[in-house]
Amino acid sequence: MGVVGAGQLARMLQQAAIGLGVPLRLLAEAADSSAAQVIVDTTVGDYTELDVLATWAKGNTVVTFDHEHVPTAHLQALVADGVTVRPAPHALVHAQDKAVMRRRLSSLSIACPRHAFVTTAAEVAAFAATVGGFPVVMKRTRGGYDGKGVFVVRDEAEAARLLMEAADHGGNDNGQHLVEERVAFRRELSALVARAPSGQVAAYPVVESRQRGGVCVEVTAPAAELDPALAVGAQQTAMRIAAELDVTGVLAVELFETTDGRVLVNELAMRPHNTGHWSIDGAVTSQFENHLRAVLDLPLGDPTPRARWSVMVNILGGSAPTLFDGYPHVQARDPRLRVHLYGKPVKPGRKVGHVTAYGDDLADVRRRARHAAAWFEGGDDEADEEH
Amino acid sequence: MGVVGAGQLARMLQQAAIGLGVPLRLLAEAADSSAAQVIVDTTVGDYTELDVLATWAKGNTVVTFDHEHVPTAHLQALVADGVTVRPAPHALVHAQDKAVMRRRLSSLSIACPRHAFVTTAAEVAAFAATVGGFPVVMKRTRGGYDGKGVFVVRDEAEAARLLMEAADHGGNDNGQHLVEERVAFRRELSALVARAPSGQVAAYPVVESRQRGGVCVEVTAPAAELDPALAVGAQQTAMRIAAELDVTGVLAVELFETTDGRVLVNELAMRPHNTGHWSIDGAVTSQFENHLRAVLDLPLGDPTPRARWSVMVNILGGSAPTLFDGYPHVQARDPRLRVHLYGKPVKPGRKVGHVTAYGDDLADVRRRARHAAAWFEGGDDEADEEH
Repeated sequence: MGVVGAGQLARMLQQAAIGLGVPLRLLAEAADSSAAQVIVDTTVGDYTELDVLATWAKGNTVVTFDHEHVPTAHLQALVADGVTVRPAPHALVHAQDKAVMRRRLSSLSIACPRHAFVTTAAEVAAFAATVGGFPVVMKRTRGGYDGKGVFVVRDEAEAARLLMEAADHGGNDNGQHLVEERVAFRRELSALVARAPSGQVAAYPVVESRQRGGVCVEVTAPAAELDPALAVGAQQTAMRIAAELDVTGVLAVELFETTDGRVLVNELAMRPHNTGHWSIDGAVTSQFENHLRAVLDLPLGDPTPRARWSVMVNILGGSAPTLFDGYPHVQARDPRLRVHLYGKPVKPGRKVGHVTAYGDDLADVRRRARHAAAWFEGGDDEADEEH
Repeated sequence: MGVVGAGQLARMLQQAAIGLGVPLRLLAEAADSSAAQVIVDTTVGDYTELDVLATWAKGNTVVTFDHEHVPTAHLQALVADGVTVRPAPHALVHAQDKAVMRRRLSSLSIACPRHAFVTTAAEVAAFAATVGGFPVVMKRTRGGYDGKGVFVVRDEAEAARLLMEAADHGGNDNGQHLVEERVAFRRELSALVARAPSGQVAAYPVVESRQRGGVCVEVTAPAAELDPALAVGAQQTAMRIAAELDVTGVLAVELFETTDGRVLVNELAMRPHNTGHWSIDGAVTSQFENHLRAVLDLPLGDPTPRARWSVMVNILGGSAPTLFDGYPHVQARDPRLRVHLYGKPVKPGRKVGHVTAYGDDLADVRRRARHAAAWFEGGDDEADEEH
């Protein structure tokens, strides 16, 4: 089984693959990437070069992904060449291209933020007028992640500047740009499912995801005080999207819970997702194992939580130069805490690991996870609270 | 961190090491060994050759083991050379040499089967007379595992034959041989602890282990209907042995629960052990992670079970040529079951994987685990039950 991309998702996929006895082959950005450190059969190469990708892919039963950046045309070429790609390019494109995604979800009448496709700043202003005025959100349709490629636009001049920059970078979706209302949301949710080629689906509980600067920092599973009807509705939406788009593997549907009690689809991801990391320690079957099982066309594992509450907090690069120095304090203080470090050099704001705490008391679980992540980052959340 | 030996224990250690962000270096028997398939920094070499071992060990912060077969003199040479070896040779020798172990435990007044060191068949017969007559058990003091090197001896002639064979193989413990009473036991138990250099100990619950032909086939955690005083006593014995012998890492104490209600020490192992595999899915912290944490001198994780009952059943090589064919049935039938395959070719009787089931109803949990293992082996335990 081949995996394109050697980030922490491929690394955690390897933990599940070792358990299942599935040999992974990796196409890595660099020999020292997070996943390349732990996958023996690694080829270093550039997935944007079709011949590199195609040569590597030939030896694989099936190919899947650590990220969504492989050009659609390359994936179609692999399929034409007889390689099994999961998720298939016709599904994956909805996670690669926000314009394709918005058009498809609209055609399925799935609730999304109001949006338009525009070519001029005047059209942005006209759209803004229909959604209560600026600010609105402009998005690059391809290549964004962790908030990159998403811009809050406060007036027509800012829109004009963004459109010009996009043109300088070779244009965007055939000259069309995506503009969306800025949703008044209570919080962000995520509905994550794994879907097998057979149509079987495993739906994880809907979680709450807290972001800072467009980067996920904390996930609570399940989302606290979520209206059960909204929760079921969100799961049904994710299952419907997975089926309609013919997704194989994990589909994460990032959602807004609006201040007026609706749930709108923000983004799609078709790979194990940061909002599912809690499942490694918190669910019967992790999202990584279920991604593998789905991609291998095997029956899926139970996604049920093992604890009443699980809280995952990302460790972002901070002032501490080495994460290892965090272990003595964190492990002695909280023997039940689960730590995952990704083998990545610490850089400010970079996702370099995560911790998961679980238990019956949400406030306590959250405190434990936040304290440990802050300690690894070199800060001290409790000192912060005192000042 | 270096690991000598590339079996399934090193393979499962790697899953824990990936999570903790600890790079492992492996000294493997062969390039396609179980753990060599999943550890990038692998050297293929013979650990019985001191120069191979010493050259490999130089680059490591600390060295630990997948098995107990490295000659004690080699390990002492490494230590003299400045390499940190955990467990240290002076501890490990008690798991390598049954004579050394018996003498030490006796000096600590820890309850063991009655035993003697003998050089002649007449002495075996004399010992037998003191323990109620033949049969007695003769053991090679070094190199045994999975029941190998252990012989039930029914008369003096058989003893004479065994002593002659041992002499042909270069003798045994300076001409001395270990003979033990054949214990009338109700069942076999295992008390597993992890001990850090600081002296911190994490004690897993005492489990029941079922053997077939000297090979562990099934483990129930915790041992059902075990007298709480015996359970605590067994844990205390394991903790005392770990402290007295200065063990670092996992110590598994294999025990007999006698028909007259005593607990006797049968064997010691100083590495992750088959009777602790349930802890991967069944405990807050697995034996593998705690072995790593102990060897790295980090605080230990909580060994508490996450479910009321966990049952681990080994998958032994059977009539099914490939284990993968077992997945569709097993996974569809039991989405909560946890499967671990070791990447080893199937050979009759060889440990090639294990399954763990957990839950509240022991009979159900055991049935689920046994059925899955039997299916992977190519048999069908339910058809067996019907006939």
